[in-house]
Amino acid sequence: MAKGKGMGSVYRITELVGTSRNSWEDAARNAVRTAARTLRDLRVAEVTKTDLVVENGKVVAYRARVALSFKYEG
Amino acid sequence: MAKGKGMGSVYRITELVGTSRNSWEDAARNAVRTAARTLRDLRVAEVTKTDLVVENGKVVAYRARVALSFKYEG
Amino acid sequence: MAKGKGMGSVYRITELVGTSRNSWEDAARNAVRTAARTLRDLRVAEVTKTDLVVENGKVVAYRARVALSFKYEG
Amino acid sequence: MAKGKGMGSVYRITELVGTSRNSWEDAARNAVRTAARTLRDLRVAEVTKTDLVVENGKVVAYRARVALSFKYEG
Amino acid sequence: MAKGKGMGSVYRITELVGTSRNSWEDAARNAVRTAARTLRDLRVAEVTKTDLVVENGKVVAYRARVALSFKYEG
Amino acid sequence: MAKGKGMGSVYRITELVGTSRNSWEDAARNAVRTAARTLRDLRVAEVTKTDLVVENGKVVAYRARVALSFKYEG
Amino acid sequence: MAKGKGMGSVYRITELVGTSRNSWEDAARNAVRTAARTLRDLRVAEVTKTDLVVENGKVVAYRARVALSFKYEG
Amino acid sequence: MAKGKGMGSVYRITELVGTSRNSWEDAARNAVRTAARTLRDLRVAEVTKTDLVVENGKVVAYRARVALSFKYEG
Amino acid sequence: MAKGKGMGSVYRITELVGTSRNSWEDAARNAVRTAARTLRDLRVAEVTKTDLVVENGKVVAYRARVALSFKYEG
Amino acid sequence: MAKGKGMGSVYRITELVGTSRNSWEDAARNAVRTAARTLRDLRVAEVTKTDLVVENGKVVAYRARVALSFKYEG
Amino acid sequence: MAKGKGMGSVYRITELVGTSRNSWEDAARNAVRTAARTLRDLRVAEVTKTDLVVENGKVVAYRARVALSFKYEG
Amino acid sequence: MAKGKGMGSVYRITELVGTSRNSWEDAARNAVRTAARTLRDLRVAEVTKTDLVVENGKVVAYRARVALSFKYEG
Repeated sequence: MAKGKGMGSVYRITELVGTSRNSWEDAARNAVRTAARTLRDLRVAEVTKTDLVVENGKVVAYRARVALSFKYEG
Repeated sequence: MAKGKGMGSVYRITELVGTSRNSWEDAARNAVRTAARTLRDLRVAEVTKTDLVVENGKVVAYRARVALSFKYEG
Repeated sequence: MAKGKGMGSVYRITELVGTSRNSWEDAARNAVRTAARTLRDLRVAEVTKTDLVVENGKVVAYRARVALSFKYEG
Repeated sequence: MAKGKGMGSVYRITELVGTSRNSWEDAARNAVRTAARTLRDLRVAEVTKTDLVVENGKVVAYRARVALSFKYEG
Repeated sequence: MAKGKGMGSVYRITELVGTSRNSWEDAARNAVRTAARTLRDLRVAEVTKTDLVVENGKVVAYRARVALSFKYEG
Repeated sequence: MAKGKGMGSVYRITELVGTSRNSWEDAARNAVRTAARTLRDLRVAEVTKTDLVVENGKVVAYRARVALSFKYEG
Repeated sequence: MAKGKGMGSVYRITELVGTSRNSWEDAARNAVRTAARTLRDLRVAEVTKTDLVVENGKVVAYRARVALSFKYEG
Repeated sequence: MAKGKGMGSVYRITELVGTSRNSWEDAARNAVRTAARTLRDLRVAEVTKTDLVVENGKVVAYRARVALSFKYEG
Repeated sequence: MAKGKGMGSVYRITELVGTSRNSWEDAARNAVRTAARTLRDLRVAEVTKTDLVVENGKVVAYRARVALSFKYEG
Repeated sequence: MAKGKGMGSVYRITELVGTSRNSWEDAARNAVRTAARTLRDLRVAEVTKTDLVVENGKVVAYRARVALSFKYEG
Repeated sequence: MAKGKGMGSVYRITELVGTSRNSWEDAARNAVRTAARTLRDLRVAEVTKTDLVVENGKVVAYRARVALSFKYEG
Repeated sequence: MAKGKGMGSVYRITELVGTSRNSWEDAARNAVRTAARTLRDLRVAEVTKTDLVVENGKVVAYRARVALSFKYEG
């Protein structure tokens, strides 16, 4: 592996919960978009849980919990 | 916590499997809608499993298993 | 998928524990047989746990916990 | 095992969530007490999840999810 | 069960990861479609993991890992 | 769902370990109280692990690990 | 360890689902027997799931999913 | 609960692996029988794993790993 | 790390189930106290399961299963 | 994401067990090296299990089970 | 327990992924070293996942994901 | 299976935690070596957990928890 190619770099995992009225894809994308404002070098976001919020017998929101890895600045 | 605010209320968890030709969101919504006909005070539905039904090499249905919590009447 | 082929139908999961003096197959079959008296359209029963009851150092019963899915009438 | 000792009897598992302002013991006991009004021959209740409800930075409720096994009447 | 009804037949499980720019449904369908070219008698595909690929702070792909069962020819 | 009702808001999960000489309730409450000093809009804290610290054959502390969700400011 | 004793050899894991009208032992044995026709040096088969197929309220088949390890030829 | 009814008694869990040429029931029973020679007051044995030993493409043994609880004498 | 600081020391894990009429804290403490009579250098006890014993619709005992680590004498 | 960048490509997961007299790194590397002879476009190998083989009270081999993903040719 | 002995102190868990060309020990150590620059009172780092990065059929990096606990300043 | 080939023999599982300043291999080997002094017929040791001890921001020990199976003498 070429030197300087990130060998030795450290990543951090953070878990966010995104919400959407439309879909789990939307909910996850919301979480990623919000995180991207301050976190550098996001790469992969694993979905660790999905659920629905129900009100008056109707689904009013989709939620996706995602574990995001990003460059750790220490 | 104010009296009457549900303190002491008991909820039950039931697991349903919804099906849809279109998406897992649809499948889960079907399960919630069916449950809402008879169950009171549904709140959150956690997705515990998702799969696909395949026929002749094609996806013909999306299924979502959801754990619904609702007011328990004993 | 042909219309009316069960698209949109909702299934419920219920967990039963069957018991037998002879085997886990027997124990699971007991649970299914009892459930079949009142539940419609049983299809698959996943075994989620098996154990043994011991008395005076002897195995006196085999138990199988099964998660049964059946047509949900709402 | 003596005949009639419950060999062949079938048990069902149901999951309830009890709530209490004081403790998880209390929360679990609430779930059991409510279930006991209608379910026969309760024996063991396994705790499958515990959490806390927070309001204004304060813990306002303890919740315990318990899996109760009881005699199944089919 | 009628003789010849598949009693004794053996199935194999294989795990594939499908990718899509649009949704997890699409990603899973891609995996199934690719598998269907060479595997016989696909029936059910369980989703065992879902994640997102992120580039420059944006979600560029949805991935679904599915466990497919198909007729085993030995 | 009414606009402005938090649709689209993103939550973060953080895991804390609280400690107490008296009980797990106390330990969890300590974790929540400490978190509430700086985190906004805490709602639910799931207990993910409980253990005991033993010294000289005596239990000297109860520890509760809780996963707290709170409003993410990005 | 004596040379040639298999040090460095690589094994592969494959998952099969066997079926039987009689028992899970039979179902697992069917999976192993079918695999043994083409796979070399099978050693251990871990059972990763067992379930039952139900038709008209009766158990018509026992299924065992087994993870088989065998010599990998690359 | 009546005094002396075992309140305060402590149980220990031990894990054994039983083996049989015939069945998993037999394998588990072998483990229990061996344990019963020296352990007092065995009650329940949970099956935590089952596998098969394969030789020359044939199943030669069924193994059951069981977690046994028994009276702890300290 | 200074020599003699326990480097190389080996610990063993044992699982006990403690019981109490009052609380899970009490149940766990009972298990630890009993173990401490014969086991040396107990340090941490992880709670791996909690349940309740029910009689006549009432909770009569709290049980805590704890995994204790202690100095192994070989 | 640029067109042709692998969108829509499907990966397969295969599980191998590598062995080494020296270390788990070596064992995993052996599995990867063997797989690389025939599988195209290997990317990540997740370690799903590690164990040791013991003979005459001595560790004679380290084994690592790895789940490899590679380009699926259908 | 002596007063001031950390009773009541709260710890936080953070998950980092360290990387190394040589070994998982090295990868984990990298994660700890980076974290130690800014986090106070690190004590234990549990390894929650290990994998390998493969390029051109060769292992080019070992990665270890570790859950670090450290003093929480609120 | 030839008579006397261990059919019917019962194995026990015990969990040990080994420690080393150098590596997890070393830590696991320490656990095995210590166990081998008194336990007969050790065969396989599964690694069930690995962690690191940190002091003053430095890794001072690697720990491996291993589940050892050995001949049970009853």
